[in-house]
Amino acid sequence: MPQKPPKPTVPSPDVSPLQLNRISIYLRCLNRLQEEGVEQVSSKVLAARFNLSAPLIRKDLAQFGELGIRGHGYDVGKLIDRFVELFGLDREQKVIVVGMGKLGSALADHFDGSHGAFRVVAGLDTDPEKIGSSIGLLVVQPIQDIETVVKQTGAEIGLLTVPRASAQDSFERMVAAGIRSVLNFAPVRLDADPSIHLRNVDLRIHLEELAFFAQSDRQE
Amino acid sequence: MPQKPPKPTVPSPDVSPLQLNRISIYLRCLNRLQEEGVEQVSSKVLAARFNLSAPLIRKDLAQFGELGIRGHGYDVGKLIDRFVELFGLDREQKVIVVGMGKLGSALADHFDGSHGAFRVVAGLDTDPEKIGSSIGLLVVQPIQDIETVVKQTGAEIGLLTVPRASAQDSFERMVAAGIRSVLNFAPVRLDADPSIHLRNVDLRIHLEELAFFAQSDRQE
Repeated sequence: MPQKPPKPTVPSPDVSPLQLNRISIYLRCLNRLQEEGVEQVSSKVLAARFNLSAPLIRKDLAQFGELGIRGHGYDVGKLIDRFVELFGLDREQKVIVVGMGKLGSALADHFDGSHGAFRVVAGLDTDPEKIGSSIGLLVVQPIQDIETVVKQTGAEIGLLTVPRASAQDSFERMVAAGIRSVLNFAPVRLDADPSIHLRNVDLRIHLEELAFFAQSDRQE
Repeated sequence: MPQKPPKPTVPSPDVSPLQLNRISIYLRCLNRLQEEGVEQVSSKVLAARFNLSAPLIRKDLAQFGELGIRGHGYDVGKLIDRFVELFGLDREQKVIVVGMGKLGSALADHFDGSHGAFRVVAGLDTDPEKIGSSIGLLVVQPIQDIETVVKQTGAEIGLLTVPRASAQDSFERMVAAGIRSVLNFAPVRLDADPSIHLRNVDLRIHLEELAFFAQSDRQE
C-alpha cells in the first residue's frame, strides 16, 4: 500500500463505517424535514421524530464541526450540503451491475438516476440469452467487455448479483477492471483484498434471523 | 408484554442478533463443506477457509453445547442439523410480500421455495393495475385482503417493498393482520412496537458508504 499523502480540498474527518451509516440516516431525515419546509432543527427534535439518539447526533455532528446554536439547533440546509459533499452525492455516482438476472435487473431499473445520485450505467452478464437484451435504457453487455465498460463509463461502484458459484470469479473480474467498491448480493463470503471496499447484502441472513424470532414467538 | 413461560421442546439458548447472523454464516459454510463431502471440520480450518475467527467460532459453538473433539473437530452434519432446528428451517417458512413492484416481484420470484426453506406464498399491492396479474405462480392480491391472506397461508414473515410514502401504513396493516417479523426495504425508519421483529435492508445506506470510500480513494 502506498503511503497516503495529505488529502486536498474536502477535509474528511476520520469516520467509522457505523458512523457513515448513521450519517446516511441523518441525511435522509434532514431531506425529509427540508421537504416539509423545516429550516432549523435541534438534536432533541431530530431524535424524537426519527427514533434516533440525541447525544449520538450531537457527538456525530460535533465531529463534523457542526455545533448547532442553543435555542435554534442546526441549520438543516447547511447540514444536508455538508453530508452530500461528504458522500460525493453532488455528482453522479456511476454504478455497474454484474449479473442481470431478476435481482440485477430490478436494481438497474431502480437506480436509473431518476431519484438520487446513483445511476446504473451498465449491466453485464455471461448468459448469451441475456446479452443484447434491453433492461430499461440499458442493453446487457458481455462480461468479457467489463474492462472497456468500466473505462468508458467511469463507473466506480459495482453491484454483484450473480449466483453463488460464479460470485468469486465475477468479483475478481470487476476488481481487475478497476472497480474498487462492491456491494455483493450473492450468498457467499468473497475472498477480497483489504484495499477493496466490499459490503454484503445477504437477505437470507436477515430471513433466518426473522425465522428464529418467529419460532421463539410461537414457543411463548 | 406477557411474562414468558419456560420454553418447551427446543432449548434455545439466549442468542444475540449478531450471533444469529454469525450462525447463518456458519450454516452456509457448513452446507458448502457437506456438499464437498467433508464430515468433520476444526474451528481453525473453518475459520481459514471462510475468513472467519476461530476463537469466535469456538465460543459460539460452545454456547450451543458443541465442543468438538480434539484432533477431529466438529461433526458437520450434526452442526447443520442443530442450526437448521434453531432457525426452524426444517419446515417451510411462509413469507408474504407487500408491494409487488420490481423489487417485490424479483424477491417473490427468487424465494419461490425451490431452494431453501423460505417461500413467498402471497404478494399484495394497492395498485389496481397490478392486482390480478401473475408473478410466477402467484396472483397479486389486493392489500385489503391481507388479513384473510395471512390467516389462510399461515405466513409469519413479511417483506415490505412499497414506496417510502406508504411504508408506515403498509407496515401497520401487516402487523394488524398478524405478521410479527418484517424485513423492510423501504428507505424509511418505521415506527414499530418493540415486540415486532423489524429489520431494515437499506441499499442506499450501503451505496452512500461505498460512495464515500470511492471519493476517499480518488483523493489519495
